[in-house]
Amino acid sequence: MSMIEAAKRAREASIQLAAMSAESKNQALEAIMTAIMERRDEIKSANKVDIENSKKEQVSEPILKRLKFDEHKAEDVCAGIKSLIGLTDPVGKVQLQTELDDDLVLTRIAWPIGVIGVIFESRPDALVQISTLCLKSGNAVLLKGGSEAKETNRILFEIIEEASVKAGMPQGWIALMESREDVNSILAMDQYIDLLVPRGSNAFVQYIMKNTNIPVIGHADGICHTFVDESAKIEMAVELVVDSKTQYVVVCNALETLLVHENIAKDFLPVLQEALKEKGVTIKGCERTRNIIACEAASEEDWKTEYLDYILSIKIVSGLEEAIAHINTYSSGHTDTIITEDGVNTKIFMNLVDSANVFHNASTRFSDGFRYGFGAEVGVSTSKIHARGPVGLEGLMIYKYQLEGKGQIVADYASGKKSFKHRQII
Amino acid sequence: MSMIEAAKRAREASIQLAAMSAESKNQALEAIMTAIMERRDEIKSANKVDIENSKKEQVSEPILKRLKFDEHKAEDVCAGIKSLIGLTDPVGKVQLQTELDDDLVLTRIAWPIGVIGVIFESRPDALVQISTLCLKSGNAVLLKGGSEAKETNRILFEIIEEASVKAGMPQGWIALMESREDVNSILAMDQYIDLLVPRGSNAFVQYIMKNTNIPVIGHADGICHTFVDESAKIEMAVELVVDSKTQYVVVCNALETLLVHENIAKDFLPVLQEALKEKGVTIKGCERTRNIIACEAASEEDWKTEYLDYILSIKIVSGLEEAIAHINTYSSGHTDTIITEDGVNTKIFMNLVDSANVFHNASTRFSDGFRYGFGAEVGVSTSKIHARGPVGLEGLMIYKYQLEGKGQIVADYASGKKSFKHRQII
Repeated sequence: MSMIEAAKRAREASIQLAAMSAESKNQALEAIMTAIMERRDEIKSANKVDIENSKKEQVSEPILKRLKFDEHKAEDVCAGIKSLIGLTDPVGKVQLQTELDDDLVLTRIAWPIGVIGVIFESRPDALVQISTLCLKSGNAVLLKGGSEAKETNRILFEIIEEASVKAGMPQGWIALMESREDVNSILAMDQYIDLLVPRGSNAFVQYIMKNTNIPVIGHADGICHTFVDESAKIEMAVELVVDSKTQYVVVCNALETLLVHENIAKDFLPVLQEALKEKGVTIKGCERTRNIIACEAASEEDWKTEYLDYILSIKIVSGLEEAIAHINTYSSGHTDTIITEDGVNTKIFMNLVDSANVFHNASTRFSDGFRYGFGAEVGVSTSKIHARGPVGLEGLMIYKYQLEGKGQIVADYASGKKSFKHRQII
Repeated sequence: MSMIEAAKRAREASIQLAAMSAESKNQALEAIMTAIMERRDEIKSANKVDIENSKKEQVSEPILKRLKFDEHKAEDVCAGIKSLIGLTDPVGKVQLQTELDDDLVLTRIAWPIGVIGVIFESRPDALVQISTLCLKSGNAVLLKGGSEAKETNRILFEIIEEASVKAGMPQGWIALMESREDVNSILAMDQYIDLLVPRGSNAFVQYIMKNTNIPVIGHADGICHTFVDESAKIEMAVELVVDSKTQYVVVCNALETLLVHENIAKDFLPVLQEALKEKGVTIKGCERTRNIIACEAASEEDWKTEYLDYILSIKIVSGLEEAIAHINTYSSGHTDTIITEDGVNTKIFMNLVDSANVFHNASTRFSDGFRYGFGAEVGVSTSKIHARGPVGLEGLMIYKYQLEGKGQIVADYASGKKSFKHRQII
């Protein structure tokens, strides 16, 4: 089947899937969970083939690690499905209800977006995670995986498709694109795909964002900042910076650039340097920073760099205003924090920093769907429309308007014979 | 000033504008209203120049009509601003609040999108309407008008900028792009513009949608359907079809294709034909329709055509399923209606028709922001993300997450020393 045919089928199936009951979708999720556990040996064997082939092609160690799908991963994805089953069904939720006039009731209900395109690199567990998220939210899904995970993706897809269709989901709601047509063909399918969710490296997501007209949920990079204000408690600031930078360095919500108020720099920086030394962090400082502590020199390029490594750039600023201006210039709009005991400065920072997540006295690492309590995460978005920040199931939803009448015509309202009442019900 | 410079200034101003109080924005709107009324003679003179130049260039009558900005238009736009002032300020509304743990509170608040790009054809009143909508919602705005309205646009822009900045709005929040650089330069400014709102003909909107990576609120066309089910009341069906088709033919929510259940066709079509004849509507029918009433033949092309004229295409279908399939194939996803007395069919139709507005026993002409009670309309969107259907002020909003902590670090939660509580407050 060609990609276009699969996309057309998915579009048709999406109509049926959108109207499926919460119960039937949850039953399908249960069936998928059972099938994955029952057939985990098959998955393991397929995964072995992928790993051996990748080793032959001398694929790098981190990619091999992401590629692995063992017993542990099977349990992980099933735990994810289980918690997904427990979430409230997002479809059909009434968002707004207005009586436009007697017997003329407008209702806006949450509704699935339609067809979600998912392009992912080596991690086959992403296939399970995102396709079950789509199922729960009533969306059809077109999957395009990396060739290095070909065998694992195929068996996982087969299991999910078979179990879900047997449980009553419409044929074609999920499709795996395996043809030789490349990722660029998907990026051009704006006629069939309503939203793209890329899963992979930053370079990969950036490539996708720049080469499609289809809306994308994702983030190209995460250059996160912390500003230590003059009234900050030094001990708290050290703890927060160490956690933000080192708790997990390769992620988008890790700290990359620290801004320090000039009036606290002399007291704060030597203590911070000690703490970061213990964690093996290299500091790159501006000239004023280097007058206080010994470190490498930071250049303009550093303010634009997401290290994803044990490196921190530091700049001393004259105060709140300069800190905010620096962040709004160099931040990727992901997560930025102020550490201060000053309530007024907190409010100004939170209002004027134009990022999806603005924090006060908390680690940048908190910006994450699970920590936010969303239960399931579609991704983190740095887009300015639709969904911003950590995106839960809600990000896969839009709405539709339903109007229930008794034969009303607009001519009566245009002529003044009748007039609108607009009574808000919900 | 180059377009890029104006865009950079707008980006900076948008940060300040987003944090402006409801009161100060309303004062600025009042000031704009007063200035427009005070300087209406200046506007009229400028408009005269545009109209004379356009006449010289033999611009068509409908464009000349749209171009006109007289006393009446000035009063209209001021009435619009007045009602805008009365609307609740959308900025800062708390959408969600969760205590992640003791003293660690996450709040999601509605926030302006940032910089809105508005490209409009000949109607200068669109400039006033959309820029005041942006001001109310705390968004900066870049305007690019048609050259035929150059003088009117310039004076309106000057009035709005001067009055609003004097009233405390940040310099640069509004910019008029008059340089010779063309519309395509705007379409490429995805670094500065967060959302595009095109105002103009369908061909114009379609061109914009196809030639930019910036998200667009709008609709290329409106091929709306009405399905007359076998249980429909004939009198009601005739009234609704006549209203949907003829109440105002040149608009996106006017009816273009009528689907009729085969069991009611013989009784219904002759009555309908009489009623449509009175209004001067030409019917184009499928073969089965032409076996019942005399009319022109409809071809495949008709199902894809938005006439925006006194023409209606009619197709007889075998029942609900065929009607839904036809609509999901040919509808532009704008507004589609079922006329029926059957509750089960209503529910199926409303669930399975994949359009922004699905109606039961009501005219398609109701799908409109003012009739829906939104007070102000940004446009009608056929997009599947962010905003769908008639879009009010809400369509110019996104949100930001604010996290208030007391020094919490993620390491404590990762190690199991602490655990999340996720207590929903709002």
